[in-house]
Amino acid sequence: MAQKSQNYKTTPKPLRPRKGRNGKQAKPATRLEEVLQSAANIFFAKGFHATSIEDVARDVGMLKGSLYYYIKSKDDLLFRLLLAGIEDGDAFIAQQIDPEGDPVEQLERAIRAQIDYIIQNRVPFGLFLHEFDSLSGKRQHKLISVMSRYNSRFVELVRRGQGQGKLMEGEPWIVVNGILGMCNWLYRWYDTDNVSDPEQVKQIFLRMLLQGIRKV
Amino acid sequence: MAQKSQNYKTTPKPLRPRKGRNGKQAKPATRLEEVLQSAANIFFAKGFHATSIEDVARDVGMLKGSLYYYIKSKDDLLFRLLLAGIEDGDAFIAQQIDPEGDPVEQLERAIRAQIDYIIQNRVPFGLFLHEFDSLSGKRQHKLISVMSRYNSRFVELVRRGQGQGKLMEGEPWIVVNGILGMCNWLYRWYDTDNVSDPEQVKQIFLRMLLQGIRKV
Repeated sequence: MAQKSQNYKTTPKPLRPRKGRNGKQAKPATRLEEVLQSAANIFFAKGFHATSIEDVARDVGMLKGSLYYYIKSKDDLLFRLLLAGIEDGDAFIAQQIDPEGDPVEQLERAIRAQIDYIIQNRVPFGLFLHEFDSLSGKRQHKLISVMSRYNSRFVELVRRGQGQGKLMEGEPWIVVNGILGMCNWLYRWYDTDNVSDPEQVKQIFLRMLLQGIRKV
Repeated sequence: MAQKSQNYKTTPKPLRPRKGRNGKQAKPATRLEEVLQSAANIFFAKGFHATSIEDVARDVGMLKGSLYYYIKSKDDLLFRLLLAGIEDGDAFIAQQIDPEGDPVEQLERAIRAQIDYIIQNRVPFGLFLHEFDSLSGKRQHKLISVMSRYNSRFVELVRRGQGQGKLMEGEPWIVVNGILGMCNWLYRWYDTDNVSDPEQVKQIFLRMLLQGIRKV
């Protein structure tokens, strides 16, 4: 219904600890993890520039001085968060695909994985987008190199699919930015209150994307 | 080439005044417009929470007190910027389409318009995304109502296309979030240094989207 489109964007829910094997909420495994989780939530809610190290220390019940046992600086804290986020995502996609397999089947797997990943990681993903430019120099360079590896998993599948005459012509990296755009945008509008079943989204997006890029 | 995907995201260029009719850079039409333009650039670069009214006043060469002649508060300044952005975008799409025309043709026009709009408005669009949640209450409500009108232009076209048996089945607002996601993501990766010709992007995206949602 039309009014559903009103639910365009509300603040993603804060990060929640993953469930442990016994089904109960698992505590962050280490004190460092707790610091990272707290920082991600506060940076995302308040913005990196407006957050102080004291804010994070207060949230995890530490003295500012003790926090420096775990991290070097506020920039270092943001960098660790963003790097962990993008490396996690990259590893998750890599796990799901066989780069030597049929490129169209593998793209389908990669798109499913991308949708799952975004839905499950709206806060770290949003933080990555909003604060990427708060870092610079070597740190930003490192992030760019992981993003590049990430994107190239998709680009190579598109390129192979084109080579085998299965996919439309066109710059593979533009095609991939189109695919990832549709998936990544989920961080803005996906809301478990309105779309209870991620399968519904996957079915519609996969249909749009796979039929869209198929050679006819 | 794969390495192009490295150019994933760099800070969008600052807002530039539109060209005047004589082809020269037009000055902002009014002092208020100058204030809004300056605030958009600073908010986007530094983040809303970390920007002070003094920062904006300094940038436009005014005293802080004089700035309050034009705006009520920092929140008011952000609200005006975001509202102007979304209303501009909505008016731009509305201008390009005939809601009674053939829904597939009109969707094509709407998608072209959306791509043009995002490419030409990366800073205000990015500001909207990053700072939407800095507002609350009535102000955020007003923005949501314009966004809803905006989205529903697309939703109605998809719904009519489905009704005429021309488009795939599936929740129209999920289909629309897919379409808009592919287009809106341009604000992250489109860079005039790498993609000189927006027609190349439009051609690939329209092919992916229109073939993707067509009923087969």
